[in-house]
Amino acid sequence: MLTKKSSYVVAVVGANGIVGKEMLEILEERNFPVSELVPLASERSAGERVTFRDKSWVVKKLSKDSFTGVDLALFSAGAERSLEFAPSAVTSGAVVIDNSSAFRMAPGVPLVVPEINAHAVAGHAGIIANPNCSTIGMVMVLKPIHDAVRIKRIVVTTFQSVSGTGKEAIDELAGQTVALLNFREIETKVYPHQIAFNCLPHIDAFLENGYTKEEMKMVNETRKILEDESIGVTATTVRVPVFRCHSEAVNIETGRKISANEVRAILSSAPGVLVYDDPKKNLYPLAIDTTGKDDVYVGRIREDESIPNGINLWVVSDNLRKGAALNAVQIAELLIQ
Amino acid sequence: MLTKKSSYVVAVVGANGIVGKEMLEILEERNFPVSELVPLASERSAGERVTFRDKSWVVKKLSKDSFTGVDLALFSAGAERSLEFAPSAVTSGAVVIDNSSAFRMAPGVPLVVPEINAHAVAGHAGIIANPNCSTIGMVMVLKPIHDAVRIKRIVVTTFQSVSGTGKEAIDELAGQTVALLNFREIETKVYPHQIAFNCLPHIDAFLENGYTKEEMKMVNETRKILEDESIGVTATTVRVPVFRCHSEAVNIETGRKISANEVRAILSSAPGVLVYDDPKKNLYPLAIDTTGKDDVYVGRIREDESIPNGINLWVVSDNLRKGAALNAVQIAELLIQ
Repeated sequence: MLTKKSSYVVAVVGANGIVGKEMLEILEERNFPVSELVPLASERSAGERVTFRDKSWVVKKLSKDSFTGVDLALFSAGAERSLEFAPSAVTSGAVVIDNSSAFRMAPGVPLVVPEINAHAVAGHAGIIANPNCSTIGMVMVLKPIHDAVRIKRIVVTTFQSVSGTGKEAIDELAGQTVALLNFREIETKVYPHQIAFNCLPHIDAFLENGYTKEEMKMVNETRKILEDESIGVTATTVRVPVFRCHSEAVNIETGRKISANEVRAILSSAPGVLVYDDPKKNLYPLAIDTTGKDDVYVGRIREDESIPNGINLWVVSDNLRKGAALNAVQIAELLIQ
Repeated sequence: MLTKKSSYVVAVVGANGIVGKEMLEILEERNFPVSELVPLASERSAGERVTFRDKSWVVKKLSKDSFTGVDLALFSAGAERSLEFAPSAVTSGAVVIDNSSAFRMAPGVPLVVPEINAHAVAGHAGIIANPNCSTIGMVMVLKPIHDAVRIKRIVVTTFQSVSGTGKEAIDELAGQTVALLNFREIETKVYPHQIAFNCLPHIDAFLENGYTKEEMKMVNETRKILEDESIGVTATTVRVPVFRCHSEAVNIETGRKISANEVRAILSSAPGVLVYDDPKKNLYPLAIDTTGKDDVYVGRIREDESIPNGINLWVVSDNLRKGAALNAVQIAELLIQ
């Protein structure tokens, strides 16, 4: 458990990664009480520098001894590193907020979106998991509807940006795009196929059931966060040639009829959600507009006429902020309340 | 009705458009018996030249008198021009195959995908409609499944390329991409928002019910082609920064249980459909691989675990070929059989 103090020693694991840097920015932006920053990374990136509160900090090499004196450790360096080092952080007395998929579905590990299930934090035993980026955007919008009319089933198709994969993927999209526009051969390192001017129905590894891990994260994490195993969820997750923000076409079937206007009204008062829905003025959420925004944007709200109680929505959120770093810092804020 | 001859006078309206050119290519490729080509276009494009069978043809200005002596008129110059000129073509004795949305839902106008409802051609009264590009890809894959286990409901989300909009849209995507990579301001003329590195949940005009016309085309045309008004269809159609080919995430609920393997078996023998589904080898349909192909590619076939009888599929087809020009020429082939 975190002892209440006026300020905290905060470690960021993966500090010079794309999410790590966003975490530093958000800790600063929101004036999180950091007495000392401990930026950590694997050997490859140790020695690099990051900026926090106008000061340059050297990133130190992550080891099992890195966490002595650390109060809070924000992990965003992939599931393998979380599995290896998060237990040491806990043993050292730190509370871990883990952005990887390593512990999300583990019993006893709270999976938290503060606007939705802040109460779950109380049950932690040292590790709190940050949900998958595409799941966070979706549940932010669905929870208020679930509370009102119960959601029975979700069919979701995602349009996920390359920043969800990391820095190398951003370079790959930019590099391939330049190559193609100059009639040069493209290089393919991060993704199995060309991502420039193409859509890949493949995010994370394939499982025996034909789904990807990313798709099953949306199924399992949604049920855990909404605390309702009865919700049917099926997902198709697709990587698109967009740099930042994930868009999602979400179709839901509800327990009782709800109109599009009622959905708009409910979501208008939902914390962290912005209804952006005026198609006659060509206003609907767009990845390019949502970049750097904290809110999850929702639009194209309309009744699905193929079933008695259906609604379609278009959800866009910044995968690096609410989908990752912001949500992690919000969890940290819950812990120090 | 078309009088059987050894070869035909064929008019192509919109001959120097992106679909018109593809029509000329396919007529040539498939050795359609053309005795004389009559390339037509609006004033703006008349006078330009097109190539057909190694010969250069001057595009003539479309008028109500353009169709004297024409046996077959392939229209692909937008709904307004079809509405204005297709009736004159019919009066002149031509049979019209119209790629626009002008007559698709008109009673008495067959809406034809030759592999699916070739029989419907027989009922025509001078005009046969070519379905919407995203609808053709989907029904090509769904019809064999519908025949086997009846499809009750379809939830479809599309990833549509800019070539569906026309030449100017291809230029807009390329131009915006170059501008952004050079940190210059972008120009937006064809689409209401930036399309480069972005996804627009907006294709064609918005209707009163909150859906776009493109979305309602998928609903209404699917039912008409499958000749089953009981099928529930709901669609979200999205423009993505891809030059050619439309991808679609299709979720279906069937009348009785069907396994993913049974779907693969059924689709493996479906004409015009190619099952391309080996995720363990990273093989699934991709827009860049389907360009220039006649077949509709289908992969990511998997059981939807959120309902008892559900299947997810990923469908990709060349919107300019099977989605437009090829299907139109196939209809012409039916007429001269």
